[in-house]
Amino acid sequence: MGEALRVGVAGLGTVGASVIRMLETQSQALAARSGRAVRVTGVSARDRTKDRGVDIAGARFHEDPVELAASPDIDLFVELIGGDEGPARQAVEAALDARKSVVTANKALLAKHGLALAALAEAHGVALAFEASVAGGIPIVKTLREGLAGNSIERVYGILNGTCNYILSRMETENMPFDVCLKEAQNLGYAEADPTFDIGGFDTAHKLAILASLAFGTKIAADKIDVEGIERITLADLRAADELGYRIKLLGVAQRTEHGIEQRVHPTMVPKSSAIAQVMGVTNAVTIDADAVHELTLVGPGAGGAATASAVVADISDIAKGVRSAPFGLPCAALATPTRGEMQRHEGGYYIRLSVHDRPGAMAAIAARVAERGISLESIVQRARRGDSKGGPVPVVLITYATTERLVREALDAIAAGGLVAERPQMIRIERE
Amino acid sequence: MGEALRVGVAGLGTVGASVIRMLETQSQALAARSGRAVRVTGVSARDRTKDRGVDIAGARFHEDPVELAASPDIDLFVELIGGDEGPARQAVEAALDARKSVVTANKALLAKHGLALAALAEAHGVALAFEASVAGGIPIVKTLREGLAGNSIERVYGILNGTCNYILSRMETENMPFDVCLKEAQNLGYAEADPTFDIGGFDTAHKLAILASLAFGTKIAADKIDVEGIERITLADLRAADELGYRIKLLGVAQRTEHGIEQRVHPTMVPKSSAIAQVMGVTNAVTIDADAVHELTLVGPGAGGAATASAVVADISDIAKGVRSAPFGLPCAALATPTRGEMQRHEGGYYIRLSVHDRPGAMAAIAARVAERGISLESIVQRARRGDSKGGPVPVVLITYATTERLVREALDAIAAGGLVAERPQMIRIERE
Repeated sequence: MGEALRVGVAGLGTVGASVIRMLETQSQALAARSGRAVRVTGVSARDRTKDRGVDIAGARFHEDPVELAASPDIDLFVELIGGDEGPARQAVEAALDARKSVVTANKALLAKHGLALAALAEAHGVALAFEASVAGGIPIVKTLREGLAGNSIERVYGILNGTCNYILSRMETENMPFDVCLKEAQNLGYAEADPTFDIGGFDTAHKLAILASLAFGTKIAADKIDVEGIERITLADLRAADELGYRIKLLGVAQRTEHGIEQRVHPTMVPKSSAIAQVMGVTNAVTIDADAVHELTLVGPGAGGAATASAVVADISDIAKGVRSAPFGLPCAALATPTRGEMQRHEGGYYIRLSVHDRPGAMAAIAARVAERGISLESIVQRARRGDSKGGPVPVVLITYATTERLVREALDAIAAGGLVAERPQMIRIERE
Repeated sequence: MGEALRVGVAGLGTVGASVIRMLETQSQALAARSGRAVRVTGVSARDRTKDRGVDIAGARFHEDPVELAASPDIDLFVELIGGDEGPARQAVEAALDARKSVVTANKALLAKHGLALAALAEAHGVALAFEASVAGGIPIVKTLREGLAGNSIERVYGILNGTCNYILSRMETENMPFDVCLKEAQNLGYAEADPTFDIGGFDTAHKLAILASLAFGTKIAADKIDVEGIERITLADLRAADELGYRIKLLGVAQRTEHGIEQRVHPTMVPKSSAIAQVMGVTNAVTIDADAVHELTLVGPGAGGAATASAVVADISDIAKGVRSAPFGLPCAALATPTRGEMQRHEGGYYIRLSVHDRPGAMAAIAARVAERGISLESIVQRARRGDSKGGPVPVVLITYATTERLVREALDAIAAGGLVAERPQMIRIERE
């Protein structure tokens, strides 16, 4: 047995308490796996006295997480404070400066400062590990960083936010509108009181930035992501998707194109038969397209104390064994600066839902605006108007073959400018397997 | 940059050629990831002159793989010869004895000699890595050995043989009988001329033995697996499964029970809504049930040169970085000797298909034989007899609630002994998520 690995845990919420519990219950197996004991020797939290259901009597309590991070009593610092600045950032920097390895679940911190922190870890020869920051208990960071080392990755995409997937799943299966499902998710604790961060797609974007860096060997670029949330998805969209053989999921997609790397978060139509379409509720899933493995999908819990702690403890176990991977797979100097794949140049199929004024020639005019731009239509669905809305606008759904975002937007602008539609057109991108 | 890692590859079939190609095309990325170049310095194959579409001019050719394995020109030996004895075993032993790390895709060798080989690797302080031996390009070995270090695993199960899944998928979707689908699989190169090893479940059993050892920290026990193949699955079974909301898959299942560790390979009814049921064709999938992550599923390519090479190269990359995990996660001395969970004590639901003689009281007698053993039935489906078989036997399908294998077998024996059925009853176990 080597010397014990002394761990300091800052942040004793659900995840922190789970980590401490897991290190205790799995202590024998972890020691056997890594050849050394793993002990929690220091903790930090806002409230010292709160009962968290775990025994922290053996650990030294620090009011200040930065003090814990730099303390000579620990070898490894676990950051579970959260936030992309303030104590989380200061504590992680302090730990790395003091030549201690860091394990964090903090996707916001990584999205904003990941490159600088990785450089700091590299300079001091310590680990910076963050399996828990993306897709909770799914070992997607390890898979991208180590498991696919022989592959060139073309695309990585997934359901990275359980709140959004829960809401979309409920809307679909229960036929309940967005607002009702959001309220339900809030009551169940799946969504925050201010849900913007989740449903606006920003949480997914942070995670996507991390995945893209790992997949493509590029510097993390969270400021180069096109983000759309799920707020505008209606039951009409879900029903139309269903009829056409699709489901709607909020995906984060990072993809190599000839114009650069697209990083985009948006509601997406995925074929019902795809693995990703089967993923319902708060579950997460990530699919990787790569030259050798073709397609690999991982499905599992995206959040929750135990699942997140599982990822944190796996990182601790690797560090205890002496595993040193570069945080983003490659040394910082070898990470390329990504060229942004502009959304206007995005190529793919599109779902378009229009509310068309019921006038002679309206459909012909719409078809002309689309055809003028060389956009071919795979299907057109004009539904029978409901009985009580005679003379009102008619819902029309178009599915395009592969085209570009620019052309679709131009066509929609022309349709709107021509006074053909009663409301802002809905547009949802289609993602093929 | 550290010193180059010198690799010797024995066996230059599809996988071997793919490995050499991948090490070449990914050489820059691999060097950047691991901090050292990875070079193929030696090869061995039966035919020196065959054109494999890869450049091996820079590598020294050895007629004898054992000679390559022990050669001072290599640091790491890649065994892609196959077979559980003979040159494969001798070469791997020779490499480990010469203190060289070994990467192998050889599930048969591991199933039979994995523990002894792991002990040899441990004694000499070198790595023995075998990601490619189970589920091809899916990083399931890494996930079990490293990614879930904080979990207690309860069950691991999956579709581990693409040939069987291809045949069952085709039977279901094309409504073609077993023999026709097998022939088709043979024509496509998915099944061997002698398909027994695949369709009899033995290939799945080898892989399951490896997964069970990793999941439970037990000594590999390939001789303690209950194995049934797919030869007796009929279209009638697939149709009945479909009606009842199930699909039939050949699964390998390793499960902790209070009686010991069950390791079983058999055709299995899985709920259509489960992730594993969605997996069609030659694709593989593995699901892990564990206390913290609850359920994690990995889906990807189970075979093929590039996918298997991807796993081999990931292992090489880890070794190049200096990662040393115990082959089965724990040091050999810490691996427990598993108690066999006897199949007779297996608990679960059962599908039973009977061909019942059309006599007064036959169904009552069958129901009595079942009820006498305390087996409760979830459903009974007695189909209308086809027009042309008036007076002939009537197909009856029973689905039981959870019971034990012993009771089901006793009931079926009693039914057969009572002369109630025209042919041997079909029995398929149901696996719940």
